[in-house]
Amino acid sequence: MQTIKVGLLGFGTIGTGVVKVFQQNRELLANRLGTELELVRIADLDTTTDRGVRLPVGMLTDDAQGLLNDPDIQIVIELIGGYEPARTFVLQAIRNGKHVVTANKALLAKHGDEIFRAAEEADVDVMFEASVGGGIPVLSAIKENLGANNFSALYGILNGTCNYILSRMDENGEDFDEVLADAQRHGYAEADPTFDVEGIDTAHKLALLISLCFGTKVDFDEIYTEGVSKVTALDIEYARDFGYKLKLLAIGKRDGDRVEARVHPTMIPQDYPLSSINGVFNSIRLVGDFAGPVMLSGYGAGMNATASAVMGDVLAVARNLRAGGGIRVPALGCPQRQLASYPVKPMDQLIAHYYLRFTVKDQPGVLAKIAGVLGRYEISIESMVQPHRHAAEAVPIVFMTHEALERNVIAALAEIDQLDVVQQETLLIRIEENLE
Amino acid sequence: MQTIKVGLLGFGTIGTGVVKVFQQNRELLANRLGTELELVRIADLDTTTDRGVRLPVGMLTDDAQGLLNDPDIQIVIELIGGYEPARTFVLQAIRNGKHVVTANKALLAKHGDEIFRAAEEADVDVMFEASVGGGIPVLSAIKENLGANNFSALYGILNGTCNYILSRMDENGEDFDEVLADAQRHGYAEADPTFDVEGIDTAHKLALLISLCFGTKVDFDEIYTEGVSKVTALDIEYARDFGYKLKLLAIGKRDGDRVEARVHPTMIPQDYPLSSINGVFNSIRLVGDFAGPVMLSGYGAGMNATASAVMGDVLAVARNLRAGGGIRVPALGCPQRQLASYPVKPMDQLIAHYYLRFTVKDQPGVLAKIAGVLGRYEISIESMVQPHRHAAEAVPIVFMTHEALERNVIAALAEIDQLDVVQQETLLIRIEENLE
Repeated sequence: MQTIKVGLLGFGTIGTGVVKVFQQNRELLANRLGTELELVRIADLDTTTDRGVRLPVGMLTDDAQGLLNDPDIQIVIELIGGYEPARTFVLQAIRNGKHVVTANKALLAKHGDEIFRAAEEADVDVMFEASVGGGIPVLSAIKENLGANNFSALYGILNGTCNYILSRMDENGEDFDEVLADAQRHGYAEADPTFDVEGIDTAHKLALLISLCFGTKVDFDEIYTEGVSKVTALDIEYARDFGYKLKLLAIGKRDGDRVEARVHPTMIPQDYPLSSINGVFNSIRLVGDFAGPVMLSGYGAGMNATASAVMGDVLAVARNLRAGGGIRVPALGCPQRQLASYPVKPMDQLIAHYYLRFTVKDQPGVLAKIAGVLGRYEISIESMVQPHRHAAEAVPIVFMTHEALERNVIAALAEIDQLDVVQQETLLIRIEENLE
Repeated sequence: MQTIKVGLLGFGTIGTGVVKVFQQNRELLANRLGTELELVRIADLDTTTDRGVRLPVGMLTDDAQGLLNDPDIQIVIELIGGYEPARTFVLQAIRNGKHVVTANKALLAKHGDEIFRAAEEADVDVMFEASVGGGIPVLSAIKENLGANNFSALYGILNGTCNYILSRMDENGEDFDEVLADAQRHGYAEADPTFDVEGIDTAHKLALLISLCFGTKVDFDEIYTEGVSKVTALDIEYARDFGYKLKLLAIGKRDGDRVEARVHPTMIPQDYPLSSINGVFNSIRLVGDFAGPVMLSGYGAGMNATASAVMGDVLAVARNLRAGGGIRVPALGCPQRQLASYPVKPMDQLIAHYYLRFTVKDQPGVLAKIAGVLGRYEISIESMVQPHRHAAEAVPIVFMTHEALERNVIAALAEIDQLDVVQQETLLIRIEENLE
C-alpha cells in the first residue's frame, strides 16, 4: 500500500509536538501501521518562528487552502484552536473527503453537531481524543473496549491548571490568588485564566464525555458551570478535617431520560483514588454496568502528551484507510441519527450533601438563628465546626448537611444571607459521597 | 447489513456474564454497531446446570464441532480456559475463517505464537483484552490510542487475589496463611492458589503486555517469577515505616535491545498512585515517550468486568466486519514478522534498592558481622532498623540498601545465611523508587 499522507493546520505548541512524533517515531509508526505515514505539509500564518524542529524546505506554508485542496493528503490535523477559521477549514477538509483529527474542544462543544453530520455525509472520520484529558486515551476507551457498557456515571478532573492550583492550596495552605499569580509567572496558567479557572474548559470536555458515554447530545449552555475562584485555603483545610479532598469535578450521570451535567468544586472522600490525582494530572472515572468503575489517569495537557493523543487518532484513521476506508466508529460512538437528546436535569432538583461556610459576627445566638432557617427548609445537619478566631470581626461557621434538595439549600442561604449577623455571602460546596 | 452471528465456547462464570451482556445491552450494542449482534450458539460439556440466565431452546449444546463448523457464525468467543481443547478449537475456528475473542492468558502465553501466525494467514482477528486486567481496557489502549508511543516501562498490579491478600495483611496486620484461608472460604481464592499467589498468572499477563508495549516476543519461561507467600505482615509494617507499600508488581522495561521482565513482591513509594490500588482492583501504569505515564485501573476479574472486556473485543471485530473485514490491527499491535525477539535481561544484572530482613540471635556483634559481609560485596546501607523483641530467640534486623547489583546481593546473602548467628533464610524484597 502507498504511503498515507498527512497535513497539519496550526504549528503552535501541540503542532510542534506532532512533528516530533512523526520524526522521532517514524519507524515505529510504520511498523505498527504496516505502511509509511508521512507528514507532507504544515500550514500556519507564522512561517518564520523557530519551533526547535527541522523541517524539509517547502513543508511549512501559510497557504491553508493549498493544503486543504491537496488531493494527496488523506488526513488533516487541525490544531489552530478557537472557532474560526478552524470551523471553516474542518468543514472544507471534510467536504474534500479528508479525515480530520482535532484537539479543539471549544469548536466541538459549539459546532460538533454540524461537523459530525458533515463527516457522516462525506463518510470520513472526525477524531478528537486530544480534546479531553490530554494524553489519556479516554475517548477511545469509551468508544472501543468499554463500548458494550451502559454507563451510569462519569467523574473527571479535566483541567490541569485548576488541579495544580487546588493541589498547591492544599499542600501549602496558600490562597487562590497567590497560587494563580505564581502559576501565571511560570506559564502553568494563561494570562487570562477565565476559561480554565471558571470551569468553562472543563464543561467543554464534559459535554463531549457525556455524548460519548450516554449516547446523547447535550446543550453546552445547559451545563451548570462553577469555577474554583471562590474557594479558599480554609475550605480545603476544613475539607481535610472532615475526610474530604476538594477537586474541580466534571460530573455526568444518566438519570432515566435525563442527564446530570455539572462542573463545580466538589468534596470527595479522601481515600478515593480520584483524591490522589494531584498537580497537572487529569483523571476520569467511568462507571459501566458491566465493567464497574474504570479509572484512567495521566497528563491532561502539554505538548508531548497532547501530541500522543493526536497521533493515536491519526494511527486509527490510517488503519481504517488501510482496511478499506469509510467510518468504522462514528465520531460520538453511534450514528448521529441514533443520538438521544436527553435534557439536562435542572440544578435545583439536585439532591446532595453540602458544605456550607457562613461568615458571621462572633456573638451568642448566631448558631441558633442559622440552624433555625436550615431546619425550616428541611436541611438537617450532619456536623458543625465553629473554630475559635479570637478578636476577629467575622468568624466562619461550617456546616456539613445530610442529603438535601438544592432548591431548599439555595432558598435557605438567600434567607440566611439577609440576617444581620451574617457578614458576607455564604459559600456552598457540593459533596459527592459515592462516586458510583 | 445482515446480523453478525456469534458463537460461545465455554459456559462458565465469564460465559454467563457474556450472555448477560448480549441480553441486557442488546439494543445498545446494535446502536453502537449499526447492526444486530446475535449470540446464536453456546457449546459446553455441561448442558444441564442452571446458570441463572434464560436461553432460547436449542441454543446450548455440547457439540463444539457443530459450532466451529457453522458457516453462519463469524465470531467465536473462547472461554473454556486452559490449554486443551482450547488450543485446538481456537486454531480450528481460525482455519474456518472465524474471528476469535478469548480471555485465555495461559493459552496465549504458551501457544500465542502459533495462534497469532495462524490468524494472520487466515486474515482473521484474535483479540484478548479480557486476558489482562479484567475490565480495564489496557490492551486496546496500547494498540490503539497510545500506539504512537515508544514505551519505556510498564508496571502492573495484575492479580486480584494477591492484591486482596496483601491489602488485608496491610490493613489488619493478619498473616499470609490466615488471609489466604479466609479468602478461600469466601471464594476469592482458588482451592489450589499456586497460580495466583506464586505469580504465575501475573507473569502470563506480563508476557502479553511486554509483547504489545515493546513489540517483541518474550519467552514466558525467562520471566523471573516470585510470589507473595514468603511475605509477612511484619515486612508490610516495616515497608510502611520506611514510606513504602508492598505490592506484587509485574515489571517490564525496555533496556536497549533487551527487556526486563519480572514479577515479584515490590516496595513502591507510598504516595505513588499505584500504592492506592487496594483489594481486588488491578492497575497498569504505562510509560510512553510522548504520553508520559498513563495509569488505568478497575476490576481485574469477576464475571461482569471480564464479560465487558470480552464484549468490547466482539464489538471491535464486528466493526471490522462491517468496515470490510480483514485484520485492521494485528493481534500484538504489529505484524508477527516485525516482532523483535529481545532477550530478557538476566536477574543477576539488575540494579535496585533492596529491603533485607535478617533473622538473627539477639547478641552483640551480629550487626557488625552482617554489615561486614555487605560491605565486602559493595552493598551500602541507606538505613537500618533493629526493633526490640525482648526475650525472643530470633530477632529481625532490617536493612534498606542504596542501589546495588543483584548478583552481589545474592552472593552476600548466601554468605550471611551461613553465619552461626543467622537463624533463618534472609528475606529480600526489591524496591522500585521511580516508576518511570
